[in-house]
Amino acid sequence: MKHPHAWLIIAGAMLFGSTLAQVATNPVKDDFKPTMTTQQGKKYPQVNSEGRVRVQLAAPQANKVQLDIGAVKYDLVKDEQGVWTGESAPQDVGFHYYQLNVDGASVPDPGSLYYYGAGRWGSGIEVPSEDMDFFALKDVPHGQLVETYYYAKSSSSNRRVYIYLPPGYDKDPSQKYPVLYLQHGMGENETGWGSQGYTALIMDNLLAEGKAKPFIIVMENSSVNFGPGGRPARPAPGQAAPANQERPNFAAEFERLLLNDLIPFVEANYRVIPNQANRAMAGLSMGGMQTRLIVMANPSLFSHIGMFSSGTFTPTDIKDIDAFKPSVKLVFMSFGGRERGASRIGEAAEAWNQIGIKGVAYVSPETAHEWHSWRRSLYQFAQLLFK
Amino acid sequence: MKHPHAWLIIAGAMLFGSTLAQVATNPVKDDFKPTMTTQQGKKYPQVNSEGRVRVQLAAPQANKVQLDIGAVKYDLVKDEQGVWTGESAPQDVGFHYYQLNVDGASVPDPGSLYYYGAGRWGSGIEVPSEDMDFFALKDVPHGQLVETYYYAKSSSSNRRVYIYLPPGYDKDPSQKYPVLYLQHGMGENETGWGSQGYTALIMDNLLAEGKAKPFIIVMENSSVNFGPGGRPARPAPGQAAPANQERPNFAAEFERLLLNDLIPFVEANYRVIPNQANRAMAGLSMGGMQTRLIVMANPSLFSHIGMFSSGTFTPTDIKDIDAFKPSVKLVFMSFGGRERGASRIGEAAEAWNQIGIKGVAYVSPETAHEWHSWRRSLYQFAQLLFK
Repeated sequence: MKHPHAWLIIAGAMLFGSTLAQVATNPVKDDFKPTMTTQQGKKYPQVNSEGRVRVQLAAPQANKVQLDIGAVKYDLVKDEQGVWTGESAPQDVGFHYYQLNVDGASVPDPGSLYYYGAGRWGSGIEVPSEDMDFFALKDVPHGQLVETYYYAKSSSSNRRVYIYLPPGYDKDPSQKYPVLYLQHGMGENETGWGSQGYTALIMDNLLAEGKAKPFIIVMENSSVNFGPGGRPARPAPGQAAPANQERPNFAAEFERLLLNDLIPFVEANYRVIPNQANRAMAGLSMGGMQTRLIVMANPSLFSHIGMFSSGTFTPTDIKDIDAFKPSVKLVFMSFGGRERGASRIGEAAEAWNQIGIKGVAYVSPETAHEWHSWRRSLYQFAQLLFK
Repeated sequence: MKHPHAWLIIAGAMLFGSTLAQVATNPVKDDFKPTMTTQQGKKYPQVNSEGRVRVQLAAPQANKVQLDIGAVKYDLVKDEQGVWTGESAPQDVGFHYYQLNVDGASVPDPGSLYYYGAGRWGSGIEVPSEDMDFFALKDVPHGQLVETYYYAKSSSSNRRVYIYLPPGYDKDPSQKYPVLYLQHGMGENETGWGSQGYTALIMDNLLAEGKAKPFIIVMENSSVNFGPGGRPARPAPGQAAPANQERPNFAAEFERLLLNDLIPFVEANYRVIPNQANRAMAGLSMGGMQTRLIVMANPSLFSHIGMFSSGTFTPTDIKDIDAFKPSVKLVFMSFGGRERGASRIGEAAEAWNQIGIKGVAYVSPETAHEWHSWRRSLYQFAQLLFK
């Protein structure tokens, strides 16, 4: 409306833009198909073999529709029926949060499944990788992903927790299990590992192949906020944990919940082996930073530590290494190959090995700061636990 | 664009329309607040004490934004910042699927939580009722809502199932439980009862008050389709089960799955009492019609029957009443008070009582064909089971 000729320009783009742009600058492989995050019965979103995401939306009266993914907005093109279609540049394999933009409104894609991330429920899309078999749904014995609630004194509230119980948990009431406390990243919540993380299927498949020991996994929300009405204290995006403060607020609040409420609840209600040798903690991104801080403050509680895309952890971070050393059995660090931290974890792992604690570095090929890196990390980490 | 003066008319409506319309024809009580289906941290959607739903969407370049709820589209009004706001007429208390419409595009509301219904994942909203305490999250012993998978020969596929285990299930490995098979409605799936149905919290609260016997609840997807690529065979909306065919396809396929795969899986993997006296079946809408057909065909399998908003069931429907009579203990029928069927179930229940089978009719006050009717129905039905 500000530029009266805009309509003419847009109309021209509608008639010719799509074909011209694709031929001239943007050859797109035409092998798009729905992906595992497309709603059953919906035709879009689709992904092609280059990793491009194609979306489609009927919006007859709209002036502009965009696909907003990976911090880039891609213009869609309207056909005669008022249906807009368009695709992104190739994306990394793995899982990406995204949204559509209709005349300035950011909305979920009505064709996608919805996930919690980036601080909201919204669209997510899976760009297929070649190694999806390890979290595929197969005819193997399946564990149980439990949703339940408990009252936490630390937060004075009833809280939701997800708990993975390995196959056979209900068969032998005399068997007890080790436990992994597994944390999500910033802007995510307790649903992440069980949903886009495919934790249950990863574990079911590992156990069916005899590649892991059976253990319980506890997934709670570590973006804890005990204050009145405010948001949890979190570092800004991309900001590391403050150097001058070993347990900043965002870890201290979850530490209190974990130690005073969550671990006691789990150990009173599930058949766990309640000792340090059989208790692990891991997390991705912010969850890994929380893991590092909480384990350093409580070395007598956890024996196996996993940090996925969460920076490095070396023996020089520990003030009293003699107290730390006898209790900790494994320090596992991982990054997506396209993350900057990937080059540093090998040396850090070696430093642990040199003082007699098993250090493992894992780099997820060709992935960035997203869930496929973390699924692969869990797959590797789980095979090393409690052995 | 078709009507060049439309912009002027719309601009006028933006400046004056909202206030005028509200004063003249549409006085709206200004006590809107976020509801339990609003995403945490989001300000909208909101509901007021009249049951009006108010939504808000930033869409600076849009020409028209609407709230689409209860089969009516309500125009929103744009402010100077390009933020559109508007509300619906008063809605019945309870749960409603809805969507937004931006320049012709039907999309989920980015501020709502998402639910599976109407054949898709999309926005749902809770219009608060006065009786929400029975499914409130409280500091009581909580059961577990289990998500797991099993291989079904009937469908030659791995299928997801949700199972509610009552509080204490893991405490006493010698205790066995009765089982209720609980079905969703048309266009819904196995997530409905555990999500918008609040099955776990309803049962936790009933059990904490000693109002129900503990039992297991199994929730699978009864919109079964074993054919290649097609949709399940379903009656059209509002259409009753065909009179000339007692087990139409939509029940026969689920019957096969239930009898040959689901019940055997549950009885092999959970501590259930595997006999007719301890096996119940119920469902809402289509799920209740399936219940009626499957129970009539298999009277030796189920003793307690629930049909929520699913028509009536009378002794005259049974061909061999002498075979049916000794085994069935309860026929429960319910409707929302605003549904047409509500007036007919009292007489039907009485007909069961007259032949010595307990018949119960329940009418949910001031609700229609939606989840609050069905939550209340489960609350009533559960108190009558296995006693």
